[in-house]
Amino acid sequence: MTRTRLEAFSDGVIAIIITIMVLELRAPEAGTWEALRPLAPKFIAYVMSFVYIAIYWNNHHHLMHTVDRVDGAILWANMHLLFWLSLVPFTTAWLGNIGPEETLPTMIYGISLLMPAIAYTILVRSIIAEQLAHSGGLHSKLRDVVGVDVKGYASLGIYLAGISVATVSVRLAWAFFATVAIIWLVPDRRVTRTLKS
Amino acid sequence: MTRTRLEAFSDGVIAIIITIMVLELRAPEAGTWEALRPLAPKFIAYVMSFVYIAIYWNNHHHLMHTVDRVDGAILWANMHLLFWLSLVPFTTAWLGNIGPEETLPTMIYGISLLMPAIAYTILVRSIIAEQLAHSGGLHSKLRDVVGVDVKGYASLGIYLAGISVATVSVRLAWAFFATVAIIWLVPDRRVTRTLKS
Amino acid sequence: MTRTRLEAFSDGVIAIIITIMVLELRAPEAGTWEALRPLAPKFIAYVMSFVYIAIYWNNHHHLMHTVDRVDGAILWANMHLLFWLSLVPFTTAWLGNIGPEETLPTMIYGISLLMPAIAYTILVRSIIAEQLAHSGGLHSKLRDVVGVDVKGYASLGIYLAGISVATVSVRLAWAFFATVAIIWLVPDRRVTRTLKS
Amino acid sequence: MTRTRLEAFSDGVIAIIITIMVLELRAPEAGTWEALRPLAPKFIAYVMSFVYIAIYWNNHHHLMHTVDRVDGAILWANMHLLFWLSLVPFTTAWLGNIGPEETLPTMIYGISLLMPAIAYTILVRSIIAEQLAHSGGLHSKLRDVVGVDVKGYASLGIYLAGISVATVSVRLAWAFFATVAIIWLVPDRRVTRTLKS
Repeated sequence: MTRTRLEAFSDGVIAIIITIMVLELRAPEAGTWEALRPLAPKFIAYVMSFVYIAIYWNNHHHLMHTVDRVDGAILWANMHLLFWLSLVPFTTAWLGNIGPEETLPTMIYGISLLMPAIAYTILVRSIIAEQLAHSGGLHSKLRDVVGVDVKGYASLGIYLAGISVATVSVRLAWAFFATVAIIWLVPDRRVTRTLKS
Repeated sequence: MTRTRLEAFSDGVIAIIITIMVLELRAPEAGTWEALRPLAPKFIAYVMSFVYIAIYWNNHHHLMHTVDRVDGAILWANMHLLFWLSLVPFTTAWLGNIGPEETLPTMIYGISLLMPAIAYTILVRSIIAEQLAHSGGLHSKLRDVVGVDVKGYASLGIYLAGISVATVSVRLAWAFFATVAIIWLVPDRRVTRTLKS
Repeated sequence: MTRTRLEAFSDGVIAIIITIMVLELRAPEAGTWEALRPLAPKFIAYVMSFVYIAIYWNNHHHLMHTVDRVDGAILWANMHLLFWLSLVPFTTAWLGNIGPEETLPTMIYGISLLMPAIAYTILVRSIIAEQLAHSGGLHSKLRDVVGVDVKGYASLGIYLAGISVATVSVRLAWAFFATVAIIWLVPDRRVTRTLKS
Repeated sequence: MTRTRLEAFSDGVIAIIITIMVLELRAPEAGTWEALRPLAPKFIAYVMSFVYIAIYWNNHHHLMHTVDRVDGAILWANMHLLFWLSLVPFTTAWLGNIGPEETLPTMIYGISLLMPAIAYTILVRSIIAEQLAHSGGLHSKLRDVVGVDVKGYASLGIYLAGISVATVSVRLAWAFFATVAIIWLVPDRRVTRTLKS
């Protein structure tokens, strides 16, 4: 019951986040290719952020499948994740305004990807802690599924590397950020597999 | 369970898409008919896109009734559909700015209708593939319902025809686009019928 | 199942409609009463429309309780209702821009209240028709509850009277519109009572 | 059933409220720290309001767990709460425009926190009243949980103190407002405990 409402609220917030980003694509006043062309960097930024948010929704969806009870820590860890995700439309809009070649917007965009990743890790920890507490430290469905969360920690590392390297080469930073997206575009087979069996 | 949340998220996104389009109708500063009149093309564009999005919601609703399980391919095929639908407010706003008589906004609007149609077809394929895989290739509830998807492929063809013809006659393009709406305004009786029996 | 999703989608759309109206209250650049005062008509318009939309949600909520199955006619009647409700933020914003003393924005606002009322009546008819069809013409839960829908038809009449009278006296028009709100602020005891028994 | 839909609608509205606030963070046209810096007060205001709205959602969530039936009074008490919450994006935006040092925006922000607190208290009363009425005055699950609502009434008092003191010292006002947030950031253990046992 409780989990259902947490999912419903998260769905609502994520649905709004993913959709309001399109409001940055302001329709031009002229009906020509020339008028459309300046929107290209905004469009690319939108597509990219849509994919990142979609990845978060998919993984959140898988994650919640392992949750039986929701306590205060999980509620707030989830809110914390939603908070950082809610900043992505801002960093996306900034990137769309400036283009992907300047250092600061690239770094800030990277940070707006890193922070939800950290929040996601905290959410995973909170769920495992609740499951262990509830079973007297014996069992956590999610811990069994996740094991040592290589993919999660790797993402944090790659984001950090990308943010750091942005001062030297913006292109390299984007390559790092893209790597994380590719890692996660593959749905988390570990969760799927364990839940199926 | 999983299907429920996919529906809930899609409902959220589609509800936002269909509603934010009305934000393009900016209230005039004067309280006269003269001040209201320039909004006419924006209003017509809004009505039209509302109907198209409503058709997608209705069909998505019918489609999801045939789904028992959701795998990664279905999740992403659904996200892909939502992505293209999320661009309709932009192409609608552009059309509302320019009016329906210029070629490029008409073509782009047509493309913003064609792309979700393609995405919908991919979603149908993904669901059928999952159902066949799950039953060892024996059975797919959705395939039985849809059969050879004449209506879906006809829509793709008519949209393509409309987009192509827009360079010659914008009116003819609109006639093509309207034809698809009319085809789909009739709810998909095949799905309804099969599910009832 | 079907009803649940219709409710969820309607909830989403109505939640967005009721909330985006607040975006018209643009925060002033100065921190003084003088800067705040021009927002007064916008604020009053917002409160008023919030109440009307809330009434619709409440009644929609009661109405849906009597629905067991959803057919195409009900789906589209519901979409039709949502369409007219989605225009209320626009007519509210216009009213907020102009103030309640000019004829045309008052009439258009009245029409934006009348149209959902008509759409609601059509939705009621669609539900009754489905229930009669399903029971071979014998029974409709909703018809038993609603009987001769005095309140519904009275609302339509009062709205029409208000819209007509606006050309003569805007104040009288507002009195008419307010009357309908008062009628409906009392929750529909007939539905509540019948469902309880 | 009814409770579920009340929760779903409230979730939708609260999700939109919490998310549209981020639209006030308009992306700068330059990619520099200098361009980003003026957004600092808006960002701080956003974080603060996000936390307050999140607290309301969490408490609403706990509160609804004690509700078995929804009557008209509860429906409207809930709408009343959502109305005041819907003004928080406006008072947040004003605060973000002006900064936290001016008296009037601080007082109005305090009022926009006080009013939902009052509305929440009314909602609690409505639920208890319904539970007592339904059990013939014998029993109310929520009253057993809440007892004398020290925390609720304390919040009202502290908000009032903060609003009053703002004319003398804005800093002291913020200290008062922050105190309420801290009180409520601790989830309502009384409800959680009672529901668990």
